[in-house]
Amino acid sequence: MTGEFHPPARILMGPGPSNADPRVLLAMAKPLVGHLDPEFIKIMDNIKGLLEYVFATQNVQTLPISGTGSAGMEAAFVNVVEPGDRVLVCANGVFGERMVDVAERCGANLRTLSGAWGQPFDPAVIEEELRTFQPKVLAIVHAETSTGVLQPLEEFPKILKKHPDTLLLVDAVTSLGGHPVKVDEWGIDICYSGTQKCLSCPPGLAPITFSPRAMAKIEGRAKKVQSLYLDMNMLGKYWASERKYHHTAPVSMNYALLEALRIVREEGLESRYERHRRNHLALVAGIEAMRLSMFVEKPYRLWSLNAVRIPEGIDDAKVRRRLLEEYNLEIGGGLGLLTGKIWRVGLMGYSSSETNVLYFLTALEQALREQGFEVARGAGITAAKEVYSRAQ
Amino acid sequence: MTGEFHPPARILMGPGPSNADPRVLLAMAKPLVGHLDPEFIKIMDNIKGLLEYVFATQNVQTLPISGTGSAGMEAAFVNVVEPGDRVLVCANGVFGERMVDVAERCGANLRTLSGAWGQPFDPAVIEEELRTFQPKVLAIVHAETSTGVLQPLEEFPKILKKHPDTLLLVDAVTSLGGHPVKVDEWGIDICYSGTQKCLSCPPGLAPITFSPRAMAKIEGRAKKVQSLYLDMNMLGKYWASERKYHHTAPVSMNYALLEALRIVREEGLESRYERHRRNHLALVAGIEAMRLSMFVEKPYRLWSLNAVRIPEGIDDAKVRRRLLEEYNLEIGGGLGLLTGKIWRVGLMGYSSSETNVLYFLTALEQALREQGFEVARGAGITAAKEVYSRAQ
Repeated sequence: MTGEFHPPARILMGPGPSNADPRVLLAMAKPLVGHLDPEFIKIMDNIKGLLEYVFATQNVQTLPISGTGSAGMEAAFVNVVEPGDRVLVCANGVFGERMVDVAERCGANLRTLSGAWGQPFDPAVIEEELRTFQPKVLAIVHAETSTGVLQPLEEFPKILKKHPDTLLLVDAVTSLGGHPVKVDEWGIDICYSGTQKCLSCPPGLAPITFSPRAMAKIEGRAKKVQSLYLDMNMLGKYWASERKYHHTAPVSMNYALLEALRIVREEGLESRYERHRRNHLALVAGIEAMRLSMFVEKPYRLWSLNAVRIPEGIDDAKVRRRLLEEYNLEIGGGLGLLTGKIWRVGLMGYSSSETNVLYFLTALEQALREQGFEVARGAGITAAKEVYSRAQ
Repeated sequence: MTGEFHPPARILMGPGPSNADPRVLLAMAKPLVGHLDPEFIKIMDNIKGLLEYVFATQNVQTLPISGTGSAGMEAAFVNVVEPGDRVLVCANGVFGERMVDVAERCGANLRTLSGAWGQPFDPAVIEEELRTFQPKVLAIVHAETSTGVLQPLEEFPKILKKHPDTLLLVDAVTSLGGHPVKVDEWGIDICYSGTQKCLSCPPGLAPITFSPRAMAKIEGRAKKVQSLYLDMNMLGKYWASERKYHHTAPVSMNYALLEALRIVREEGLESRYERHRRNHLALVAGIEAMRLSMFVEKPYRLWSLNAVRIPEGIDDAKVRRRLLEEYNLEIGGGLGLLTGKIWRVGLMGYSSSETNVLYFLTALEQALREQGFEVARGAGITAAKEVYSRAQ
């Protein structure tokens, strides 16, 4: 017989999940109600309202998909892409490449704009592709979890103005709640995220929003959405209007998301962004003081996911195992092309704290010393602390 | 600002979710670990082993899909059905009809065998369809949640012996953990369920199992599975072999499922089935003593979901609202064709208890009296209690 499970108290500073606020964990222990119970309908309405706040949108169709961030990506594509639709995907990391795979499985007429891993796309290059390819959908990752790159989207409304038939589809899995994501202002038509990153809720739901333009395309489809589970024509009716049964919503996960969003609202988005930015800057200062370097150029670094180059001669797996086993500290390794080349250090939501930054720098210093890497004692935390004292 | 949510303490006797054991709710409040943490890998292995026990299978590919029961249905179809494949779906209720919809969205060459709602299929009729249509997949619902019908599957190995190229796909959403589901013995190739019914875990995961024959078809596909999120070629590698990242598993939901399965194992499947059977028999005795009648013929009644005919002149919605508001008791109404015609009374998992049966009969008696329906006082619970005393 399987014994009871007592999880270790990990400090989660990898690419997600981040640590959940204890209030969020306790919310899941509350008694279940039915998914059509009037009390649950109230929760759904509150979640919708708070998601609109976090996405900075007035889109009616704003709700959590009952699956993880990957299900959010799939929901985005299967709904707006019909077989044969021209789709332009910008891929400069694992999640951009995954978009390519998902779009192919929808039967898209696909063009992939490949970008260097670790760099954002130049809007002028995208503009040129839009002009020659005239896609129905332009898909891009706002926060590439595999590389730590932030793709600025402020200029996109100007670019897309000349292409009124192109829908803008954005992956904000690692930015929502940690970086500004301004759906309406930036003219984003479909935007999805995950609960387990900067929202600091356990993994299991994927917040998503569809603009009226996107919904018009979905409602006008010639062929049904290939996924019934993710069909927005049906999901929208369950979440937004008739309350028609579509599937049994994950009740406890929605309790968790509601509590996580209430915490975001209490902190306020602007303060939350500033906290993420400050902890990122302190981490970078510490990293550089330890003679390590960041993988991404300064203006394009994610605050929520910090890609640190692994120095020559250092054993990646050994460092991460040491941090996990001795310090109960999880950080991420590189994915795909970047395996063995970078560490991915998450500072997301509840995990984005001064304590975690200082603890990580201390633990990393120790792990590097054990492999003969020369670091001046305390150089990392001294530099990080300077950032915090300047911020006060 | 949204206030804190305090759910009412509902007694869940609808079509699911059922009440979760408090142990299961508390398991979700445990601290998060990463989805690739060695400690999480142990949980995954334990869940796999316990799911094999519950499904009575030795299938290596036995795991929880990271979505609800509807995602389980979709995972079953999208993996084994390739566009143009002949698929025979037996539909005698909402979930059979949903299978038709899902199979169509996979591009199946579809034949629907429609059956009367409230009755099981005659294996001889299915045999004839198999002979003339020679499908690649035969899909049938074991426990039709919309009607309360149990489809006996014991004869299927004999029928399918003559059709070695046909895969048997079974929906066991409302039976797994409450009725025997013998995947290997009955020759089932793909079987899926949900966590929120007889397993008494919150909704959010869909246990599924694929036979080696089913996996061979999936591995030999000419075209990729249309859903990346549900692609068993990828999911299998995350759950069963290389631990290759596919998506971020819903960590807390897996804690819940592990605890729910441990409880099933502690009780033992045979005792659990007997408990479900006994409470069902007591409920039926009570219902009939109150001059109400069951919708399904005796041999085909689900123990987990009891369809009760709504008497003439009784206001369906009013009774259910009364039970919910005055008694904190949720039961289900009819779906589709059966709207307004039946009540669906769940006795699943933790909710399948003598206390609940007696409480429901008492509350129903009261609600019926209020609408002028004549019931001898206490007739229902007296009859139910007799069943319990005989069982001792």
